[in-house]
Amino acid sequence: MIKAQNLVAGQWQDNLKASTFYTLNPITNKPLPTQFQEASSSQIHDALIKASTIYESYASTSFKVRIEFLQSIQKELNKSSNDILKTYQEESALPSPRAEGEFQRTIDQIQRYIELLEEGTFIQPKINTSGPDLRKILYPIGPIAVFGASNFPLAFSTAGGDTISVLASGCPLIVKAHPYHAGTSALVAEAILKAISYCGLPKEIFSHLGGVSHRIGGELVSHPLLKGVGFTGSLSGGKALYDLSQKREEPIPVFAEMGSVNPILITEKRLLTDKNLSETLANSIAQGTGQFCTNPGMIILCDPQGISKITSKVIDHLSKMILPPMVHINIEKNYLLQLDKLQENEAVKLVRTSSSNSAIGVVSAEDVLKNKKLTEEIFGPFSLFVECKSMNQLKDLVKIIPGQLTATILAHKDDHSELVPLVTQLKNKVGRLLFEGVPTGVAVNQAMQHGGPYPASTDGRYTSIGTDAIYRWLRPITFQDCPNTLLPPILQNENPLKIYRLINGQLTKDTL
Amino acid sequence: MIKAQNLVAGQWQDNLKASTFYTLNPITNKPLPTQFQEASSSQIHDALIKASTIYESYASTSFKVRIEFLQSIQKELNKSSNDILKTYQEESALPSPRAEGEFQRTIDQIQRYIELLEEGTFIQPKINTSGPDLRKILYPIGPIAVFGASNFPLAFSTAGGDTISVLASGCPLIVKAHPYHAGTSALVAEAILKAISYCGLPKEIFSHLGGVSHRIGGELVSHPLLKGVGFTGSLSGGKALYDLSQKREEPIPVFAEMGSVNPILITEKRLLTDKNLSETLANSIAQGTGQFCTNPGMIILCDPQGISKITSKVIDHLSKMILPPMVHINIEKNYLLQLDKLQENEAVKLVRTSSSNSAIGVVSAEDVLKNKKLTEEIFGPFSLFVECKSMNQLKDLVKIIPGQLTATILAHKDDHSELVPLVTQLKNKVGRLLFEGVPTGVAVNQAMQHGGPYPASTDGRYTSIGTDAIYRWLRPITFQDCPNTLLPPILQNENPLKIYRLINGQLTKDTL
Repeated sequence: MIKAQNLVAGQWQDNLKASTFYTLNPITNKPLPTQFQEASSSQIHDALIKASTIYESYASTSFKVRIEFLQSIQKELNKSSNDILKTYQEESALPSPRAEGEFQRTIDQIQRYIELLEEGTFIQPKINTSGPDLRKILYPIGPIAVFGASNFPLAFSTAGGDTISVLASGCPLIVKAHPYHAGTSALVAEAILKAISYCGLPKEIFSHLGGVSHRIGGELVSHPLLKGVGFTGSLSGGKALYDLSQKREEPIPVFAEMGSVNPILITEKRLLTDKNLSETLANSIAQGTGQFCTNPGMIILCDPQGISKITSKVIDHLSKMILPPMVHINIEKNYLLQLDKLQENEAVKLVRTSSSNSAIGVVSAEDVLKNKKLTEEIFGPFSLFVECKSMNQLKDLVKIIPGQLTATILAHKDDHSELVPLVTQLKNKVGRLLFEGVPTGVAVNQAMQHGGPYPASTDGRYTSIGTDAIYRWLRPITFQDCPNTLLPPILQNENPLKIYRLINGQLTKDTL
Repeated sequence: MIKAQNLVAGQWQDNLKASTFYTLNPITNKPLPTQFQEASSSQIHDALIKASTIYESYASTSFKVRIEFLQSIQKELNKSSNDILKTYQEESALPSPRAEGEFQRTIDQIQRYIELLEEGTFIQPKINTSGPDLRKILYPIGPIAVFGASNFPLAFSTAGGDTISVLASGCPLIVKAHPYHAGTSALVAEAILKAISYCGLPKEIFSHLGGVSHRIGGELVSHPLLKGVGFTGSLSGGKALYDLSQKREEPIPVFAEMGSVNPILITEKRLLTDKNLSETLANSIAQGTGQFCTNPGMIILCDPQGISKITSKVIDHLSKMILPPMVHINIEKNYLLQLDKLQENEAVKLVRTSSSNSAIGVVSAEDVLKNKKLTEEIFGPFSLFVECKSMNQLKDLVKIIPGQLTATILAHKDDHSELVPLVTQLKNKVGRLLFEGVPTGVAVNQAMQHGGPYPASTDGRYTSIGTDAIYRWLRPITFQDCPNTLLPPILQNENPLKIYRLINGQLTKDTL
């Protein structure tokens, strides 16, 4: 049963006066049956007040308690998987393998945080006894709001990477569910709530608020008791939340992962020798109907002969693919509007497929240098092929490309020695630099970086994928000459958790 | 010879049209001889353009090169120590032992960064080969501006903790020297410049700009090529720079370490048994004529009988101390103005000493709860003693105290079991929580945290003292499937620097 209400500090609260909304099936564009309630201002306030009251108690829970909680969330998700997957597909129209893959990825992401808590050193205990007795540790910063992403109803929504990083860190969580998959989110919220009950944790650590109005996000981010924000979505949405967060009496961090065209640079030799290239590119452009943050929106070549060959092959491949609709009619409308605008630009040769909404554009680097707007993301199954006349022009082009989540250099072995200046230049633009494969598909481990210089993210010093994402919600605190019994267990002389600690500069599991 | 000019991208640039200013001797309040030039807009622009051009080359320097550079700065500072100390004392009126102590601290801080670079793991190399080959490392973010602090002409100015953390990180540095000790700063800048020349580094990595006008800081922080800011000073100054940084097209991080009253809570039993307490407190209040960011500006007691005894003793001690003047007449004027304002407040009993400008106030917690302004810092040799009627009132008081660099609980052993709720509450307010001693005096090591929740700092997740300060200027970048020769040496298969790397979750010095 999908809850139509808002979950406020662990209570499903009915509000008969609430504005309501429906989710759509993207295939039929017909509304699905549940009439969802928008969160009211008082519900938002209530969620924050209660989260703030319970914060210290949740922040002090042991890793063991949090591990059991995360395992319990996994169990409850698995128990409800049939309902969740059914609603996921109704609301997103994403195909079954994607739904199941994303569900498994969600479970796996939770597993990574369980392992992180089991190992424990992420909390960075540092002890120095050379002068005063100083013991430093990371500590949760307070109630955090996470905005569900439209493009990942599971892996970046209610029990997604962002939210689990919050719960693992010891911070109370307020989810602003994405209205395009409110049903999926409500089912996942119910699973989290069951896990909270099962573990006997205070229910106030979790709220799940819905709505289509920007008011809700605005009120959340402006609430004086909120301490941080996670967001994945558009540049305009992320920047609006960021600006609100800076207008508060106490500014708070907003980690917004926003737009990116994830440029792919292909050398002449690579173009000549890589027979699968056009198919690889087409698959990456079309993946998830182009709704990946790491979708390759710009493909750059220095080879005038090559470009027409590769674009015609890519179009051939795209034309053979039947893509599901985008996850919501509004996203699709916006995508098609952007394509229409691009078509009006005489500098761009736009080629659309008849099989679906996929398309490519072809433009000279000269024209991109004249019109920087062409470096902006068009969210959907589209890529702009850019033709450079020379390496110098390529360098000029890279110079004007704004901060990116990723860039990819596809070269031939013989090119490597010539790539050094380009690598140096691109390093300053991206969070992840690839030399093989395509940027879509993001491995979840500690060596991953998902977040780049602005405007790819609001703070490129953090990642939103991989367990390092937990550092967004922690800050250091030092205890000086603290009685052993008053210290957090991890810092106590006996090292009761038996984890690695940096004692006077040496990493050790020793007691003191 | 003190340079009156600005050092722009490694060149002392004379500007005969510049506005000029002098430093004062705080004892005589007479100007010192050097007529300093204010940095012009074009000099600021020039410094940024050149820093940005050289950034990639400096960012790519090896740790070995940076270690030699830092050692060379130490040598040049030592060579000029006589001149530096003479000018330091003329400009600050701080006594000889303080001058020498701060000089040595400055050298020692540089040594900590040398050790950090020698050890190398701070750069956090993480390698994962389970899926695609992912190799992550921290990388310098770009040109950084650091504002010299008025209260530490050496340790938090041109070659201070903030600036050395920038140079050690691999970022180019633009110092905005504090106008109150422009001569000391110019001599230190010359030492850094000599070290750059000696090491054959590009001179563009360092600029040293002076002036009294707010225009200079504003233009620096607003310059599109700047990537981050370090600041130590007042809440109004830090917040102004922060707000400017957020109005830019690309927002950048500003690490401002601002006001703090560093409350000390004293239990009844401690008051009864600690015979040195009043002297310890008086020394801490008077240290550096009250010009420490960790100065105890608020002392809280739950003991109505005790408070009059301790305050009279503290005043006795303060009365016996002859304090040097504050580092600048403007700071002193501002301090005295704040005392005068406080004297008008009928709720506060203000006691001034006749020996110097030191003073204390006494007020009830009830009145502080009514007037939150009383929790704001009065920068100088002053502390406000606050009397609580009960533990509940103490809790209410702690609730309204804003974010702090430190808080101190001075208790008796028998009190410890009762302190748990207070410790929990205070943890959320501070960067460092002390249980013995006084907050003044900040050890420089990896277990130190100097930075607290807003408004103590703009970003409590970072420290400005201790080598962890380097993390403000680094962001992660991941290389995916990168040819070994194109990787930064630290990530190459051979582990040429032989440092610890996290490979597939295991910390090891192994090769791949």
